[in-house]
Amino acid sequence: MPISHPKRLILLGTFIHCKSRSELEYLHHTAAAINEQGRICALVKDRQSVGVARDEILGHLGWRVDEVDVVECGEGEFFFPGFIDTHVHASQYPNVGIFGKSTLLDWLDTYTFPLESSLADLAKAKRVYTACIRRTLAHGTTTAAYYATVNVPATNLLADLCLSIGQRAFVGRVCMDRQGFCPDYYRDESPEASLLATEKTIAHVDEIDPGYQLVSPILTPRFAPACSHDAMKGLAKIQKEKGLLVQTHISENKGEIQLVKDMFPEASSYTAVYDDHGLLTAKTVLAHAVHLTEQEAVLISQRESKISHCPGSNSSLTSGEARVRWMWDKGLDIGLGTDMSGGYSPSILEAARQATLTSRHLAMQIDDDQEHRDECKLTVEESLYLATRGGAVCLGLDDKIGGFEVGKQFDAQLIGLGIVDDDGSRAGEDGIDWIDAGNVDIFGWETWEERIAKWLYNGDDRNTKKVWVRGRLVHSRR
Amino acid sequence: MPISHPKRLILLGTFIHCKSRSELEYLHHTAAAINEQGRICALVKDRQSVGVARDEILGHLGWRVDEVDVVECGEGEFFFPGFIDTHVHASQYPNVGIFGKSTLLDWLDTYTFPLESSLADLAKAKRVYTACIRRTLAHGTTTAAYYATVNVPATNLLADLCLSIGQRAFVGRVCMDRQGFCPDYYRDESPEASLLATEKTIAHVDEIDPGYQLVSPILTPRFAPACSHDAMKGLAKIQKEKGLLVQTHISENKGEIQLVKDMFPEASSYTAVYDDHGLLTAKTVLAHAVHLTEQEAVLISQRESKISHCPGSNSSLTSGEARVRWMWDKGLDIGLGTDMSGGYSPSILEAARQATLTSRHLAMQIDDDQEHRDECKLTVEESLYLATRGGAVCLGLDDKIGGFEVGKQFDAQLIGLGIVDDDGSRAGEDGIDWIDAGNVDIFGWETWEERIAKWLYNGDDRNTKKVWVRGRLVHSRR
Repeated sequence: MPISHPKRLILLGTFIHCKSRSELEYLHHTAAAINEQGRICALVKDRQSVGVARDEILGHLGWRVDEVDVVECGEGEFFFPGFIDTHVHASQYPNVGIFGKSTLLDWLDTYTFPLESSLADLAKAKRVYTACIRRTLAHGTTTAAYYATVNVPATNLLADLCLSIGQRAFVGRVCMDRQGFCPDYYRDESPEASLLATEKTIAHVDEIDPGYQLVSPILTPRFAPACSHDAMKGLAKIQKEKGLLVQTHISENKGEIQLVKDMFPEASSYTAVYDDHGLLTAKTVLAHAVHLTEQEAVLISQRESKISHCPGSNSSLTSGEARVRWMWDKGLDIGLGTDMSGGYSPSILEAARQATLTSRHLAMQIDDDQEHRDECKLTVEESLYLATRGGAVCLGLDDKIGGFEVGKQFDAQLIGLGIVDDDGSRAGEDGIDWIDAGNVDIFGWETWEERIAKWLYNGDDRNTKKVWVRGRLVHSRR
Repeated sequence: MPISHPKRLILLGTFIHCKSRSELEYLHHTAAAINEQGRICALVKDRQSVGVARDEILGHLGWRVDEVDVVECGEGEFFFPGFIDTHVHASQYPNVGIFGKSTLLDWLDTYTFPLESSLADLAKAKRVYTACIRRTLAHGTTTAAYYATVNVPATNLLADLCLSIGQRAFVGRVCMDRQGFCPDYYRDESPEASLLATEKTIAHVDEIDPGYQLVSPILTPRFAPACSHDAMKGLAKIQKEKGLLVQTHISENKGEIQLVKDMFPEASSYTAVYDDHGLLTAKTVLAHAVHLTEQEAVLISQRESKISHCPGSNSSLTSGEARVRWMWDKGLDIGLGTDMSGGYSPSILEAARQATLTSRHLAMQIDDDQEHRDECKLTVEESLYLATRGGAVCLGLDDKIGGFEVGKQFDAQLIGLGIVDDDGSRAGEDGIDWIDAGNVDIFGWETWEERIAKWLYNGDDRNTKKVWVRGRLVHSRR
């Protein structure tokens, strides 16, 4: 797929984004102007028609029609912010759906470490990473926080590919140096080797994308059981010096929690292990957080660390049901992660759907208090908040992406839903030029709120017609 | 989409179906012959090549190549039995995904009854039913047990459409006559009117498909709270006379169970209500069965009634988590239902996926007994059993459909998975003739078991390339 070069861009039609955690804003007959830096430089909202909005924005900016690209929504189409995947292992992409009855620790040994280590073969890494980036972009993921592998050249290759294909990404070389836990065939040789390898990936990203306009390094201690004290402390030192993001796992599974307790008897909790090593920062993204205690939630809140909620993974691997409402009530910031391949799906829309379902499984356990039960449940709006603005906050990008405001970068998707013809078929279905509009069937009487609910529950990558990152068209389908 | 006329058919390639509840059978280099009645009349399995299998089956039958249609699997393709949806409300199709925070009883009043009653408008009914049949066929559902509405002409129209489009179906006119529970704008006027209307739909199906080769009537008391004693007793009498299937709901939600207790104080349980009215038969399909007691399971087992498991719906409406393993251990027969629009998805593959996830949510609640926890979880194979042979048993069709055996009718789908190119893109992705092969990315090193797991977890209607019912091609996509 060719990547368009940034050019001035005018977008016309309906724009939908999160106004707050619980509310979507619907802007009809609206025009957005995107400048050569991929930034939204003007917005004209809610006019009588898109024509009026277009003329007004062009006049206001002094842009001529013949010097801009114009994209206008068709029937049933709208612009939506790009999705943000706050936790995804690019290196595990080929294993999606393959987990049997395993849970975290045996899953790592059986499925995960062998595949990750095999990506030291750069041809294989290129194939896997390219497929992963293209697939997630096609699902509207404009930003991803990636775990790569231990291997430096393959990790650097992932950064190169994100840059060339055009996905905003944090690329993490996985640090795992602890003997006894990590398999001998797949670990850093020592804490020093672990830190040196990390520095090499940072240096590579510094070189290919100075200023981290699209790709950033992210410090990636796999999780406490896989890391030595010295490696964790060394990473904390780098974090402080360079102000980089950190990503790791926390409290995913009860066996893992017990393992941490056994390995770090001096720590007062799993969360405390990271805090003790200087890794619990406002720039830290903690994936899973399924079984946090009250004290841990308070500590995370004090440190302003962020949570990546991965409901698909947590259900697949029988890890548990993370309590989003409870964490929100504790003041934590939360985004969504696919967690491929613990999670089976490359789609953040699917993660949002799974978030609503997992919240309902939690609600089922509350027997006698309907108000509390209803409160547990995530709404359509809340799950889409997690998928966009929530993720932006997690990755420290809420001033840059997540919604349509002047000054933000244009990371967005054009969504189209299927229109059911009068005879019950779909527009043009019998023709040779038929375009598969996916599984969302719009009959025409639905409110916009209902359309969005239908999209959340039956939408897929077919509904994502175009994807832009920093104003650059990076994916489109007929 | 044109419907092919039955013609002798030879299918060549890989055939996969359930050998038992826990095992799939993989037949490679295999040929199947389908006669003009849509029946598998010969199978030649596991030869050195498909060419050998083809020549052998043609020779055996004395068929000439020029008098048969031949369909051969391409790379990564295989034949799989058609899916069986044992519980689906065709009339609610436009509401998929629209349920908010509701649970069963308020969901009925808010979303469901208004839509169902509006289908007395036959033009609207035609549009909705056509879209539903085409959509479910596209997802490989070759047999569906449909609830229509109270309205006779619209219900009869659903039967007509199933027959003309070519989906095997049970079509149920919904009986609901109880004043106080059913809204005045949407109910049968009296028990007598309810039975008379039911007879009218039966007579209509008798006329359009004598012998019920494709479409059968099914007795459909909505659920106990919606039906008078006399209506239920009258339906039981019809059932005994005509030997028809019965479908209804049971034990979906705790509020509903309490309501049944209040309405039928003389009955010893919800299940006993149906038994007391003569409706708990070996031909009865009970949807949901989430909160059954031990005693109810024993009674259902004694009566040999069947269970339709609807995990997507039960999660969406916060109904609960039905215990498939527990019910199997009680000797119950179980199939899968999408339960649109309590369930949000038209896909039985999604229902199978949700069945594995729901079983894992149940497993999470078992704290200290790993063996018991692991046993709770449904495997890939078990969930696909539920989707095919399990459903066939539920609908009394296990001698006719559900697997590839000589004598069975050919209700099947051709499944194709996506092949990742050497450079990480998908075959032909950049070309104008690109065919979207969906989200299952096969790298080439996967075992067949892994391919099936990948299909279960990321497959959708794009992977269902062709669909046959009784040997008739009723859906195909490029």
